Amino acid sequence: MKIIADAMGGDNAPDEIVLGAFNAAKNLDVDIVLVGREESILGSMKKLGIDELPKRVEIVDAPEVVLMEDDPATVIRVKKQSSLNVGLTMLRDGAGDAFVSAGSTGALLSGATLITKRVRGLRRAALAPVLPSKTGKFVLIDCGANSDCTPEYLLQFAYMGFYYAEGVLKIKNPRVGLLNNGAESTKGTSLQLETYALLEKSTLNFVGNVESKDAMGGACDVLVSDGFTGNIFLKAVEGTASLLMSELKSVFMSTALTKISALIIKNKMRGLKDKLNPDLIGGTALLGISKPVIKAHGSSNAMAFESAIRQAIGEVGSNVASRLSKNVEQMKISSDE
Amino acid sequence: MKIIADAMGGDNAPDEIVLGAFNAAKNLDVDIVLVGREESILGSMKKLGIDELPKRVEIVDAPEVVLMEDDPATVIRVKKQSSLNVGLTMLRDGAGDAFVSAGSTGALLSGATLITKRVRGLRRAALAPVLPSKTGKFVLIDCGANSDCTPEYLLQFAYMGFYYAEGVLKIKNPRVGLLNNGAESTKGTSLQLETYALLEKSTLNFVGNVESKDAMGGACDVLVSDGFTGNIFLKAVEGTASLLMSELKSVFMSTALTKISALIIKNKMRGLKDKLNPDLIGGTALLGISKPVIKAHGSSNAMAFESAIRQAIGEVGSNVASRLSKNVEQMKISSDE
Repeated sequence: MKIIADAMGGDNAPDEIVLGAFNAAKNLDVDIVLVGREESILGSMKKLGIDELPKRVEIVDAPEVVLMEDDPATVIRVKKQSSLNVGLTMLRDGAGDAFVSAGSTGALLSGATLITKRVRGLRRAALAPVLPSKTGKFVLIDCGANSDCTPEYLLQFAYMGFYYAEGVLKIKNPRVGLLNNGAESTKGTSLQLETYALLEKSTLNFVGNVESKDAMGGACDVLVSDGFTGNIFLKAVEGTASLLMSELKSVFMSTALTKISALIIKNKMRGLKDKLNPDLIGGTALLGISKPVIKAHGSSNAMAFESAIRQAIGEVGSNVASRLSKNVEQMKISSDE
Repeated sequence: MKIIADAMGGDNAPDEIVLGAFNAAKNLDVDIVLVGREESILGSMKKLGIDELPKRVEIVDAPEVVLMEDDPATVIRVKKQSSLNVGLTMLRDGAGDAFVSAGSTGALLSGATLITKRVRGLRRAALAPVLPSKTGKFVLIDCGANSDCTPEYLLQFAYMGFYYAEGVLKIKNPRVGLLNNGAESTKGTSLQLETYALLEKSTLNFVGNVESKDAMGGACDVLVSDGFTGNIFLKAVEGTASLLMSELKSVFMSTALTKISALIIKNKMRGLKDKLNPDLIGGTALLGISKPVIKAHGSSNAMAFESAIRQAIGEVGSNVASRLSKNVEQMKISSDE
């Protein structure tokens, strides 16, 4: 298996990306193609004190760099020699099995759609992060790729999440829930009402509407949403976790005794922190593209980027895209454009 | 000041409501009118071992009871002798200064709108809970009264939240943010884009779009949203807090040593728990109604109901409704219906 890694994307590129990719090649039984400015990658290696390219790693030069100020919608056409453009073209042409980038979400989304292309018949690609719940974990789809959605998009997201949960998370017959402001079938706006009807008629294991609170409680394995609402949900979870962890820290740091208490549970707390740590959860799958594309966090360090590569390996093994492709007819409600 | 309390609403009515109302009369320098089935209220008193009606408390008999299975939209017309109908009519007629109920949100919303009525010129009433943030607290408006909203509704919610934050939370010139999936002014669906333009032109202290995560970090004092999105946000916060608290509990309970650690920080943890405890936060204001109406949590115990009464007292003192009424002209963008 060969993973194509975007060496130039993310706040800590290229140093941390290079290190993460090298660690992945060493630890994960995988070949890595680092795509980016060769000069910068060699510079990072020098900084890291690594003289030779590790086994199973190769570099493909891509002299142009996508910048934060570039328009995500057009940069892919303008900078043909960027790591994003070169890497996604390699993915399309079979020179690698998956593409991992910590760069701009918007540019990755439009690049993957324009170059690597969606699974034929799917209307939109969607971002599908995995979140912890009281009883395990679940896939949220979409968390921000599509603000405006139709019921058909959401039906397709549901299938995308279903195959991902089954193939990558290894959940049998995943329970699909529709994110809504109440459990009753009459809840939500017209988008939720129409999507509910489609999901009920589908071949999916649809468990009905799921409120945010119940999703965190473990009510479903796949939580379907338009990208706007999914983004509000995801960032509310992140913001609340961050608030509580900082409150907890100030509780622990308040007196000498509480500091001792903190020492006692330090190791146990690590488990809880890990569960919420984006660096360990890995990246977010961009589903609906014909080949696996993973968005690593923009702030990825080497460990986070290695986790994202691990996730890409899982997705390559699970054949989500080909399962979507085979079953796409049952996910259409309107004729092809 | 006189607060009208719905003795029959909520999972623990009438016992806990009666006790909470009695405690409020004793602790909060306020007169209480308990509205509900007199027989049931007297029965609760007997159970609680209270022989005589406390000072400053009176009972108004309302023989009919709103049930969970009643249609919230019509029950107010059908059961004219329910505590909800009688209490809201008293509020309208000046027989009390505020109404507090732990009963059905939908019935309270339609009852308040039909009987007590909205401030003239306001299109919709909205639910406005107060949430904790890293730097203090903020009002979320709307959290579920209106799934489908127009930009004008959201502009009005912004003013409602502004006057509430200023009057009840005592925040000077509250910062108003629009809940959105990114900070840039181009983010969101057409609802957010159009609302952004209205808020920018308004006289409010508008700080722009606010992501869920940043709202929890303290980015604004008033977070404006349609009721669907606000509900998703609110329940994601609740669900995440609940997940983390239960994870934390299992960390603390895992070994003898961690149990000792838990004992050490027990009192300090109480502060954190209190910050997240709906029983202490009080109820949720139903803003936009011509008189103060507070929705206490459905699962309110006596303490929670007393907190909701405390909140009602704060709202009566702050004249939110009359400030809205005086400034309603600048909150209109379409002509009156």
